[in-house]
Amino acid sequence: MELDNDAARDGLHDPVRDADLRIDDDVAGMRLALQWAARGLYTTSPNPHIGCVIVRDGVVIGAGVTQPAGQDHAEIQALKDAARRGIDVRGATAYVTLEPCSHYGRTPPCCDALVRAGLGRVVAAMEDPNPLVAGQGLARLAAAGIEASSGVLADEAYELNIGFFSRMTRQLPWVRMKTAASLDGMTALHNGRSQWITGAPARADGHAWRARACAILTGIGTVKADDPQLNVRAVATPRQPRRIVVDSRLEIDPRAKVLQGGGTWIVAAIDDHEKEAPLRDAGAEIIVLPNAHGKVDLAELMRELGRRQINELHVEAGTKLNGSLVRERCVDELLAYLAPTLLGDAQGMFGLPALTDLNDQYRLRFHDVSRVGDDLRILARFNPPSTI
Amino acid sequence: MELDNDAARDGLHDPVRDADLRIDDDVAGMRLALQWAARGLYTTSPNPHIGCVIVRDGVVIGAGVTQPAGQDHAEIQALKDAARRGIDVRGATAYVTLEPCSHYGRTPPCCDALVRAGLGRVVAAMEDPNPLVAGQGLARLAAAGIEASSGVLADEAYELNIGFFSRMTRQLPWVRMKTAASLDGMTALHNGRSQWITGAPARADGHAWRARACAILTGIGTVKADDPQLNVRAVATPRQPRRIVVDSRLEIDPRAKVLQGGGTWIVAAIDDHEKEAPLRDAGAEIIVLPNAHGKVDLAELMRELGRRQINELHVEAGTKLNGSLVRERCVDELLAYLAPTLLGDAQGMFGLPALTDLNDQYRLRFHDVSRVGDDLRILARFNPPSTI
Repeated sequence: MELDNDAARDGLHDPVRDADLRIDDDVAGMRLALQWAARGLYTTSPNPHIGCVIVRDGVVIGAGVTQPAGQDHAEIQALKDAARRGIDVRGATAYVTLEPCSHYGRTPPCCDALVRAGLGRVVAAMEDPNPLVAGQGLARLAAAGIEASSGVLADEAYELNIGFFSRMTRQLPWVRMKTAASLDGMTALHNGRSQWITGAPARADGHAWRARACAILTGIGTVKADDPQLNVRAVATPRQPRRIVVDSRLEIDPRAKVLQGGGTWIVAAIDDHEKEAPLRDAGAEIIVLPNAHGKVDLAELMRELGRRQINELHVEAGTKLNGSLVRERCVDELLAYLAPTLLGDAQGMFGLPALTDLNDQYRLRFHDVSRVGDDLRILARFNPPSTI
Repeated sequence: MELDNDAARDGLHDPVRDADLRIDDDVAGMRLALQWAARGLYTTSPNPHIGCVIVRDGVVIGAGVTQPAGQDHAEIQALKDAARRGIDVRGATAYVTLEPCSHYGRTPPCCDALVRAGLGRVVAAMEDPNPLVAGQGLARLAAAGIEASSGVLADEAYELNIGFFSRMTRQLPWVRMKTAASLDGMTALHNGRSQWITGAPARADGHAWRARACAILTGIGTVKADDPQLNVRAVATPRQPRRIVVDSRLEIDPRAKVLQGGGTWIVAAIDDHEKEAPLRDAGAEIIVLPNAHGKVDLAELMRELGRRQINELHVEAGTKLNGSLVRERCVDELLAYLAPTLLGDAQGMFGLPALTDLNDQYRLRFHDVSRVGDDLRILARFNPPSTI
């Protein structure tokens, strides 16, 4: 899936542009709703990014996107948009990229609003995987006499909210591991030099993927070596993802850039009140999750992040933590940028031990391959998916 | 460029299909001529693969492709095709994927045949880089009153004969190095296990690339480890490429499969009459090209292969010879198949020494990226090109 950064960023509706469109069938209606949904890519978490478009006689009469958590869902925004234009929506069709909610969360059920507004038909891309909804939204609409169905452009709708679906169905975030390597699979020279293996467009594209994640995770090795800020800079976003550092022995310097601004989660394998105090002073939270070997229990960390409502987790770590995460089957997909260059004997992408049997290899499938500037972007998913 | 194996293989014209086509402009005419040229992909070397299509009033009245060396060029085939159909070509337009030849080689000049036939117009994709032609063909046509020009779909015409152009302009073959690796850049486990990293479609595709090469080169390490036949099996071809083994110390077993059927060139760094005799008995030719270190002088080998009319050289070797060829700047492009799998600590793609400075990396540019079965095929060209 291509990211539409401009659309994702502005979060504003564009009635002039929409008015030019003819919505001749359900696919066209849903495609427009998906474009609206993409505008929430950087802002709606932990809620899914949903778009809603209301159509009558092929003309768009209202549209909206989920607002940040606690505010309007897409359906409400679309109804308000129509009202603002002075248009009666009775009998019209609403295209929604996810089944309208039927439960009271931070906001009242969207179903009820659609029923009250007198919509004639509601088409959802797919059912809501949230067990609190799961078909009840569509059933409630049908019970109110609205023609309700789902299953239009479901794959696209799934991709847009892959992390939300992961959390709802597996209680785990969708874990995306970003790496940048040469064509011969090397990420850095043995002396650690690694800057600028990929070009500026690939680095900006990487920031767009950071921006859509709920959290960015790295390891203490990377913090010590590079002192990264671990935030989104190359694309505009009103929301910065949570920062997470895996730091078994609490070695992080309280002045590390990744702690600046506060809110960083440090995941340790030890309790050490003396070390923790200055980190808490820097606004960090310490999460202690040891395994039997005195390291962080990575699978348990993923479960904890699911509990903490992390939908998409973006990993940018070094060879060692990357290897541990792959080995412990915590990773769902690789986001690998390959530069058209050969580095020869250097540092590989994953600190994985040597296999003796090819049957033990970690298998994936290519999901998407695109050129980004002079580089190649490969999205590959573990196959079968991770099951921790 | 996608290989059209079916078309390349059958080598026959298809007047019924061509008759359905409307040739409305020069691009359409040249595109059809390129399709004809591709039918010679496996057969015409050391001559270029050329296609010719003769068109009048938007209708194809003759078409042809270069026959194996010493036989008809494409223009003659197209004229004969029209004659066979009983059609007069006077005043018609000929589309040729390379400037018609103006010199006596193994066959008389095609220019003269086109003039004699009374063609009204000749459009070439590009000028012939052969210094014996180089614009003289078009000039001779013009002098005879035929409207002659070049420059339509030149890039496509160049790709189809990239080896011929390399040999004509640099006196060197175009060197394509094939490799198959995991997504983390590994070609084999440390214990040598490497079978089936990529899938059957990628292996068949690799054979199509072998088939279009004039020669396939490997090293003694691969011969000892795998005893390959080094021929084309997965696609049908009436011509097998020449086989070449780099074997500095003449260690090859005279019963090696690569010698079966004869004609193999063994490139050594020593003269050893005792070792040479049984190899010659097996039909091999020994080429002795030592460098100062007692190894084969690889750059000199490329020059020798240019002299021996090798247009495209297909390299399928092990890590060590691959590394030497890259290091000595003998390689023009990589044909890399990447499988969606991680092998961890294993054997890399190229035995290249560690760099200390990123400025010393070997830079390429991605030329083509395609999915082949479950795998990825990457064609990347060294940038700047090799200059040995």
